[in-house]
Amino acid sequence: MIVLGIDPGTAAMGYGLVEETAGRLRLIEFGCITTSPRRSLPERLETIHRQLSDIIERHSPDVMGVERLFFSRNAQTAFAVGQARGVVLLAAAQHRLAVREGTPNEVKLAIAGDGAADKVAVQRMVQLVLSMAEPPTPDDAADALAVAIWALNQAPAEAATASLYDRAAVAPMASGPTPYERAVREAVARERRVGP
Amino acid sequence: MIVLGIDPGTAAMGYGLVEETAGRLRLIEFGCITTSPRRSLPERLETIHRQLSDIIERHSPDVMGVERLFFSRNAQTAFAVGQARGVVLLAAAQHRLAVREGTPNEVKLAIAGDGAADKVAVQRMVQLVLSMAEPPTPDDAADALAVAIWALNQAPAEAATASLYDRAAVAPMASGPTPYERAVREAVARERRVGP
Repeated sequence: MIVLGIDPGTAAMGYGLVEETAGRLRLIEFGCITTSPRRSLPERLETIHRQLSDIIERHSPDVMGVERLFFSRNAQTAFAVGQARGVVLLAAAQHRLAVREGTPNEVKLAIAGDGAADKVAVQRMVQLVLSMAEPPTPDDAADALAVAIWALNQAPAEAATASLYDRAAVAPMASGPTPYERAVREAVARERRVGP
Repeated sequence: MIVLGIDPGTAAMGYGLVEETAGRLRLIEFGCITTSPRRSLPERLETIHRQLSDIIERHSPDVMGVERLFFSRNAQTAFAVGQARGVVLLAAAQHRLAVREGTPNEVKLAIAGDGAADKVAVQRMVQLVLSMAEPPTPDDAADALAVAIWALNQAPAEAATASLYDRAAVAPMASGPTPYERAVREAVARERRVGP
């Protein structure tokens, strides 16, 4: 399964692609779509939509993970983020991608074990879990990878919930670690071997 | 010149098409794109984008008029309106439509002579100016027609501003009434003839 994580914004839109194969997480690609403030807003939204559609067509992800936002410093920021987010969700629907939305709190809790984790802590955990040589930058790309990892980690929970409703799908609850838990354990073990 | 006015929203998106020919305003079409709350948000945004693209392709407007929003009761509403607005501006850019953005205050001031005009006053003026038998409904469609009329009325002002910068375009300022002013005068004259 491939998940595309998105951190929406008009000036900078972070994206990150993570694959789970045989219970292991693998980084595919990450980056940031940037648009110039010298272009009009409609042109900037078109650039985001076109580049995002290219990424989706290139990697054929199964799921898109996007943060669900509730609060904002001011209405202007909320309108601006909403505009970029609308174009992102449209691209998902046009490519028949399932969308998983999590609050920033849920994503941080899942990635760093703390719903109020700071950016550095999130970057460090993303680096560990995906076995990256450096912490991912910029922040937008790191946040996109975090939401992708979070969305991938939702799969077993969702399958368990589905079995409550779909009797044909009733199956023993998976007792092993999630791919995320396994990645963290392995990363910690690697750290210990290397030593401080 | 044909202008497409839009009142953005996810549940109900108002649209109105107004044409100016030889200094006269003519109603082409108006209505409301509605989406079901039973569908997912990405699906609803896709419906809006597809239907709006159909309208643009059917009428080939020259300009899109959309309200520019600054305030909101809460961040959730701002995110929701922003998402619908992002898809609208994207459709404009994809069809190479110029976009004119006005604040609700500017639009009401231009249409009803009062930046704080209520919905009934705006509907009544739209009805007068476009010689409609009934006030346009629902509110979303009436607001869309108002922003279309406002955007059409901006053209002479913009041409005058352009001539300040473009010496090759310097021309005598138009001294006659704008299409909107003419429509209001004619409507008032008609009302007087019919009598109370």
